[in-house]
Amino acid sequence: MGKVFLVGAGPGDPELLTCKALRLIRSASIVLHDSLVSEEILRLVPRMAERIDVGKRRGYRLLTQQDINSLLVAAAEMHEVVVRLKGGDPLLFGRAAEEIQALRDRAVEFEIVPGISAAFGAAAAARVPLTNRSLASNLLFTTYSRSPEAVEQLRNSLTADTTVVVYMPGVQYADVSQWLLGAGVAHGSPCLVISKATQPDQISVLSTAGNLATLSPLPAPTVLIVGRTVAPEIVVPLATDWRGSSDHIQIAEDTLIS
Amino acid sequence: MGKVFLVGAGPGDPELLTCKALRLIRSASIVLHDSLVSEEILRLVPRMAERIDVGKRRGYRLLTQQDINSLLVAAAEMHEVVVRLKGGDPLLFGRAAEEIQALRDRAVEFEIVPGISAAFGAAAAARVPLTNRSLASNLLFTTYSRSPEAVEQLRNSLTADTTVVVYMPGVQYADVSQWLLGAGVAHGSPCLVISKATQPDQISVLSTAGNLATLSPLPAPTVLIVGRTVAPEIVVPLATDWRGSSDHIQIAEDTLIS
Repeated sequence: MGKVFLVGAGPGDPELLTCKALRLIRSASIVLHDSLVSEEILRLVPRMAERIDVGKRRGYRLLTQQDINSLLVAAAEMHEVVVRLKGGDPLLFGRAAEEIQALRDRAVEFEIVPGISAAFGAAAAARVPLTNRSLASNLLFTTYSRSPEAVEQLRNSLTADTTVVVYMPGVQYADVSQWLLGAGVAHGSPCLVISKATQPDQISVLSTAGNLATLSPLPAPTVLIVGRTVAPEIVVPLATDWRGSSDHIQIAEDTLIS
Repeated sequence: MGKVFLVGAGPGDPELLTCKALRLIRSASIVLHDSLVSEEILRLVPRMAERIDVGKRRGYRLLTQQDINSLLVAAAEMHEVVVRLKGGDPLLFGRAAEEIQALRDRAVEFEIVPGISAAFGAAAAARVPLTNRSLASNLLFTTYSRSPEAVEQLRNSLTADTTVVVYMPGVQYADVSQWLLGAGVAHGSPCLVISKATQPDQISVLSTAGNLATLSPLPAPTVLIVGRTVAPEIVVPLATDWRGSSDHIQIAEDTLIS
């Protein structure tokens, strides 16, 4: 029985792999990876190693989570070093809990190797602090959802000095904007959309929670960073609910900042 | 004029440096680092390079933030490659905003290199997912503060399906416990304290928000992970406020899990 390494591939730039992730990828005899893992990183997998894309593309389900769990266990029966490569960090929004449970259930040895999560890659690439002693002392990671509870959920998590990072916001920016405004985010709150963070074709667009609806769709993967740290010169608290209405300053136009 | 790289050193294990961080550390002619950066990582700095510990230890202020900002600018005037090495990720709770502003003000070229933040190192080391499709869809990063507003601040950020990571909780666990309970965290909510995550002398202790007060102090740096993902077999929602009182199951004893 081999060992399974749940490895974070980071945001895309191969140089942002950890040294440990690189070592494991190079020593793997089988790599099971998500679709989001960049081609440049996949090129590091040894030519003799088996490579399986277990990701799901554009709503077309290639494999269910149950299939992936079974594949992982089967791979450990056949291979010494199994690398399960996930975009970003494996423990954040990556369904690692289910894979860990499957490995435990079958008594497969495993180890987790953290990776740079998209938020950190995007913030670094855009040179935007995630917290700031005078502007934001909390950082919230969440995902966009169309469910009716999603607005309430976000509303209950917001304070005036929180930076919010939205993973997987999709491209229905008008809906995302409604979700943010509905949860109490001020119309003029600065909002940075980063597409393909740390990759050569990265794009960041600065907008506001209210103006987000006017953006053209950007290529996946994207993250959204909402809050004052994104553009500290704009004096808008994140949530008007908490400090009365302060929605008096807006960015005149969406600005392409990189 | 040289270039300043604000580089994340990750949680402690040198193998969890990114490949880019390692390359930059090896090519630096001066490294300004925090006290939290591990000795093993500092050993990677070239022998000929200057090494300055700008960190603050045990309340004794070695340098003010203003001093550090000035040092950074001065270093860029003298050196080609200046590495400003921060524990974890440079953009989270690292006062990077102030250093970035100082560099911008003096038109010093700079770049940000993300690092594995303590939460991810700790979660990986303890093999605890940070989110879980059925238990926690939000992740909140915050710091412990004794300020009177801190309870209200936390209360306003909590939902039943949030995982909370507390950075720099200190060792006054009784106070931290009161803070959590005051903000509405259930007495029986699982709570994992991880000391020196990813370092050889790492310790993790599983407790609950209510029982935290009984723990002996653990060596810094520590992080606290609070929420159901830490121990999914314990059926306690994070905040009793949101789902009525469910504080009916507790861990009988604090358990040393690694």
